[in-house]
Amino acid sequence: MKQTSSYAAVEVAGQLKPFTIERRALRPDDVAIDIQYCGVCHSDIHAVNNDWGNSVYPMVPGHEITGIISAVGSQVQKFRVGDRVGVGCFIDSCTTCQERDREHEQYMPGLVMTYNSQEAGASTPTYGGYSKAIVVKEGYVLNIPDSLPLDASAPLLCAGITLYSPLRHWKAGAGKNVAIVGMGGLGHIGVKLAHAMGAHVTVLSQTLVKMEDGLRLGADSYYATGDATTFDKLVGHFDLIISTVSAPLDWNAYLGLLKIDGALVLVGVPTQLVPVSAFALVPQRKTLTGSMIGSIKETQEMLDFCGRHGIVSEIETIQIGEVNEAYTRVLKSDVRYRFVIDMASLK
Amino acid sequence: MKQTSSYAAVEVAGQLKPFTIERRALRPDDVAIDIQYCGVCHSDIHAVNNDWGNSVYPMVPGHEITGIISAVGSQVQKFRVGDRVGVGCFIDSCTTCQERDREHEQYMPGLVMTYNSQEAGASTPTYGGYSKAIVVKEGYVLNIPDSLPLDASAPLLCAGITLYSPLRHWKAGAGKNVAIVGMGGLGHIGVKLAHAMGAHVTVLSQTLVKMEDGLRLGADSYYATGDATTFDKLVGHFDLIISTVSAPLDWNAYLGLLKIDGALVLVGVPTQLVPVSAFALVPQRKTLTGSMIGSIKETQEMLDFCGRHGIVSEIETIQIGEVNEAYTRVLKSDVRYRFVIDMASLK
Repeated sequence: MKQTSSYAAVEVAGQLKPFTIERRALRPDDVAIDIQYCGVCHSDIHAVNNDWGNSVYPMVPGHEITGIISAVGSQVQKFRVGDRVGVGCFIDSCTTCQERDREHEQYMPGLVMTYNSQEAGASTPTYGGYSKAIVVKEGYVLNIPDSLPLDASAPLLCAGITLYSPLRHWKAGAGKNVAIVGMGGLGHIGVKLAHAMGAHVTVLSQTLVKMEDGLRLGADSYYATGDATTFDKLVGHFDLIISTVSAPLDWNAYLGLLKIDGALVLVGVPTQLVPVSAFALVPQRKTLTGSMIGSIKETQEMLDFCGRHGIVSEIETIQIGEVNEAYTRVLKSDVRYRFVIDMASLK
Repeated sequence: MKQTSSYAAVEVAGQLKPFTIERRALRPDDVAIDIQYCGVCHSDIHAVNNDWGNSVYPMVPGHEITGIISAVGSQVQKFRVGDRVGVGCFIDSCTTCQERDREHEQYMPGLVMTYNSQEAGASTPTYGGYSKAIVVKEGYVLNIPDSLPLDASAPLLCAGITLYSPLRHWKAGAGKNVAIVGMGGLGHIGVKLAHAMGAHVTVLSQTLVKMEDGLRLGADSYYATGDATTFDKLVGHFDLIISTVSAPLDWNAYLGLLKIDGALVLVGVPTQLVPVSAFALVPQRKTLTGSMIGSIKETQEMLDFCGRHGIVSEIETIQIGEVNEAYTRVLKSDVRYRFVIDMASLK
């Protein structure tokens, strides 16, 4: 066991403040990571605020972790001390299956989340990346390509895979019209990824305020959804629409923008019910579906893809002491496009 | 032009009664068909009652047509006089595309429905199969396999393809758990088709009243959805659920019965909005989608499949004079499982 500095929320919606946790002693298949950077994901805020009703405190958030391996267990095969690595949303998976499902582990029961969860087979809580160090089973640790900086690649571990997985699953690529709804932390990475995959990329954002950024990051078109004519202009236009927003939208209007066999994929999760008209689905075999992060295998594939294409998040780096202010700014969409905490600022 | 006996509704929700229509003179690519049988589809009743707000009267319903070719146009290649043929829900398609889309024509604009539509490039109404004869472009006429009787195969032209297409598209087959929701005109053919494709078939019906039929027709399991424990027993069980009902259901409960990557396909079209929870879709990448009939190519493939497997509808044959009573009985689900009108009864 090793005492480790972190920042935690000790009560519902509490301010984050310094907190000391214990990281477990290395098991044979564990690696220890000195955390360099951790992204601030909107779901960190949902968790701190208990928006999903499953929060346990004290809570150390953070699941967009990058760092350097400081020690390896006796049976570790993939990693060596000094390797540049990442940890995403989960650190263990299905303990009920005989064999781990490497393609779908994120959808299986038994997933152990990086924080606000319990370690596999134990009642000890998991603590996330707002911390100086973490100990993780090697099978849940990712390689960060040498071509990518550790700060701006941190958000790839959640935001990146959240967009990459549905873009791949629903076959974004050359000849496909892809829309990204929402130009935020998730959406801006979606634009970069879909562009790199060869798709024709359109951003659908409430306003045109971020249009210049969108086009610079790889979008071919940019429309304001606040302008009702957008929905007339783009009827039947898209093969794939990925919605990163969790606010309630006029879902049937978005379904109307799909081609035959098109898919509207939710990666932002609205808490309200999504009222869909069967007439928006049936007459052109359209699909409403969702997607959640990706498997470890697919996350590594995503990182390697980003390495080849030089894709990272647009970030604003902050000190750990600024994290509460950052939360306030995220809630106002006042960040272009992801806060990343420099863990050197945590003593 | 040829005067032809038929049965028509002359006003909204009117009783069907004898009515004389004109069928066009044969064009070079037309065939004339002596209609032997026509199925009674629930959508005939919706159309007569103007439930979808697009009805035009007088209306001759009927799009589950079988018969014998009585004459062929000068350039007809596929058919000869005496051939056993069928006509389904549409008799012409996209006139705006350069080339006809043979895989998706049912989803393209420009579809000419068999009745309550207008002939391509004209303002003359189309009249359906409650009639002694019909003239149809040969490209929209189907071969009925010799092994299938013309009466019980009539419902394949709509009910059959409505189930076959989504079963194929979402890959029903060996090793797949398929649920058919609703044990009616559509559902009972779905059971036969999914069983013949090799899937493990479960019927989800309000009650167990038709259980014996369901098991006899090929279902492996049969559950009452009126029993709340059904939804506990079958959590995460199905790869594919096809809903044939148009009544509002608890859609999120049905989504809960799907496996990871499972699809809930609506072929019955509820007029009410379908309120879906994003939490029912996102965490296991589930899909809500719909399907509508099939292309001519796929309809022929379905008929050939039914021919090989000896699949037809369970029918109750009626005289044309009984059609109004049959409508009343369909609305009470009092038919096992499809009414078929014997057109010999129409003078």
